[in-house]
Amino acid sequence: MASRLKSRRSPTSDRARSPLPELDTPAWLCDLDVVESNLRRMQARANTAGVRLRPHAKTHKSVRFARRQVELGAAGITVAKLGEAEVMAAAGIDDILLAYPVVGPLKLARLRELLVRVPRFTCAVDSLEVASGISALGVALGRRVPVYLEVDSTDSRRLGFAPGQIAAGMAARIRELPGVALTGLMAHAGAAYGAADQAQIRELAVREAAGLAETAQIAGGSLQRSVGSTPTATYMDLAARAGATEARPGTYIFNDRTEMRLGACGLDDVAVSILATVVSRPAPDRAVIDAGSKTLTSDTFLAGTGFGEVRGEPALRLVRLSEEHGVMEVPADCDLAVGDRVEIIPNHVCPCINLTDELVGLRDGRPEARIPVDGRGRVR
Amino acid sequence: MASRLKSRRSPTSDRARSPLPELDTPAWLCDLDVVESNLRRMQARANTAGVRLRPHAKTHKSVRFARRQVELGAAGITVAKLGEAEVMAAAGIDDILLAYPVVGPLKLARLRELLVRVPRFTCAVDSLEVASGISALGVALGRRVPVYLEVDSTDSRRLGFAPGQIAAGMAARIRELPGVALTGLMAHAGAAYGAADQAQIRELAVREAAGLAETAQIAGGSLQRSVGSTPTATYMDLAARAGATEARPGTYIFNDRTEMRLGACGLDDVAVSILATVVSRPAPDRAVIDAGSKTLTSDTFLAGTGFGEVRGEPALRLVRLSEEHGVMEVPADCDLAVGDRVEIIPNHVCPCINLTDELVGLRDGRPEARIPVDGRGRVR
Repeated sequence: MASRLKSRRSPTSDRARSPLPELDTPAWLCDLDVVESNLRRMQARANTAGVRLRPHAKTHKSVRFARRQVELGAAGITVAKLGEAEVMAAAGIDDILLAYPVVGPLKLARLRELLVRVPRFTCAVDSLEVASGISALGVALGRRVPVYLEVDSTDSRRLGFAPGQIAAGMAARIRELPGVALTGLMAHAGAAYGAADQAQIRELAVREAAGLAETAQIAGGSLQRSVGSTPTATYMDLAARAGATEARPGTYIFNDRTEMRLGACGLDDVAVSILATVVSRPAPDRAVIDAGSKTLTSDTFLAGTGFGEVRGEPALRLVRLSEEHGVMEVPADCDLAVGDRVEIIPNHVCPCINLTDELVGLRDGRPEARIPVDGRGRVR
Repeated sequence: MASRLKSRRSPTSDRARSPLPELDTPAWLCDLDVVESNLRRMQARANTAGVRLRPHAKTHKSVRFARRQVELGAAGITVAKLGEAEVMAAAGIDDILLAYPVVGPLKLARLRELLVRVPRFTCAVDSLEVASGISALGVALGRRVPVYLEVDSTDSRRLGFAPGQIAAGMAARIRELPGVALTGLMAHAGAAYGAADQAQIRELAVREAAGLAETAQIAGGSLQRSVGSTPTATYMDLAARAGATEARPGTYIFNDRTEMRLGACGLDDVAVSILATVVSRPAPDRAVIDAGSKTLTSDTFLAGTGFGEVRGEPALRLVRLSEEHGVMEVPADCDLAVGDRVEIIPNHVCPCINLTDELVGLRDGRPEARIPVDGRGRVR
């Protein structure tokens, strides 16, 4: 999109000022060519590194994209909640890792249905309590349910115990349970989202894998070592050499402002943006768009400011959101007018996708398909 | 809910540790008795102050609650987007204020349908561009469309011009348009959400109304003076004396942590909470629940810390969210276990409601009804 500042060299055409007039705004645009390129690049990276790719579907929550990931060579997919697993199972995805502890009788009953239905279904556990519940289910079904033990290799302080002796001790206790089969160890390098620079991300990628390798060696037997996160996936080859056998990046399919800042992608690799319309110009230095926190979320970029980046317009700063308003600070000589449109790259694309029922798939800049966000809102 | 700290006086029963076992989590709980009490209190306040109540439906997005607000005496409702208006119009709500600028041919076509369908439909405008678009529609329909002019009485710097001569000048220009009828002025005291204390909120409530009254006096004629926000609604009587004739609070139906901190409600007035389950206890000082930013949103409380308040458990602090995980810091002697449940009062209930398709309506603490969030995701 051309710049809308008066200093621009050529006059802005109506088309450039208000692109895609057939779409009502705010609209979730998704460039299908960029998606395809992102999927292929990550699959190639996994192939080169010799690790299985198991993309996290929480980002797209879309059957279409999950199928494409598998077609391109993914070993299966990862999901965050049972509800996402149910959506993907119903669509015929036959290898699913539920990277979340299943707790309580209602969820165990739903898990039972999935175990019967999906040929290869693995559950992540990080405690004996959760593993025991799944084991009881396995016993009732007369089989051992595959489980990965989550290990906190990178001191991310969410789930899991420290790698090494402590995690290996937990692995040993899980192996004593009659209804589960420990098939892998997994980590999530959430700390990468707080990394200061590439050196730190690289170090985290290696440490994440090395912690799993160390734990696997103590625990013995043959165990997958599954690592996560898009920023650390840049160093998948190093992670593989440190012991990783599987990778679970998610955000790479679309990318976002956070991934750009973390150096995990460039502007041309960002597939999703929000098309928004200027609805008010109440002051020379202010323009208000029709996308607020109910469209973009309030997620702030960890190391920056603002609620998204205006694509191609660095002088326009999205400084404040209310639910349905995005307030931009603009240069006083900016000729942005009511009715003009801008594209916003979200700070964090995953929760942003979760706010819409469908994406507008673009090919060569033109709408080609409506893509359902099948798992939207499936937080249970 | 009883305290779960070991220092509690009586042992915690299973019921107290895991309330509402028939509900899967995370669940959006809505206490219907508290809702009714909140609705009645605000209506009584409006009646006493002698102003029309026009509640903002963006908070609940629910036909059931909009109807109840009208039954209890509301003059009509307010909505934020055309999509919300369409939902409410389809349910037969016959007096709707769309408090948002309608921009572009696609939205004007939808507005046309609403104008034909809804007996009393008013549009907010804050610019001549937007008013002109609506005027053309009015001319095509052979009528004058009622409009409110939005005025920035409290320097909230979102939409609208300053009150007084500037806004009155805009009012005069809007009156020259052939297809609209200027019927009111409106303000939104968004600045109240940054207020330091009650004195400041009171001052904003008065200033909001006084700015509209001053503008109306210069503009002449008979104009509604419509004011907004739940925090300033505490001072509806003072606003009425300063010139307000209509009030549009929204959040008061449910309330939230922000409203508590702003003194607009007490803990007993909070109708909505998220029921969540502890899924991990990986460290003595850490418990992880199954509600993250895809359930609670990342909205932070403006003057505090954390991502929600654990009801009845001030020692448990929800310090970090990822998409499906809520990380709580807990006292080292806390006996919270995997499977235990907590209730989280969200920082900001409006975007939180927008993440679910239904609320679980409770009566006397028991589930009584599933309440659809009819306008969920209607951001266009």
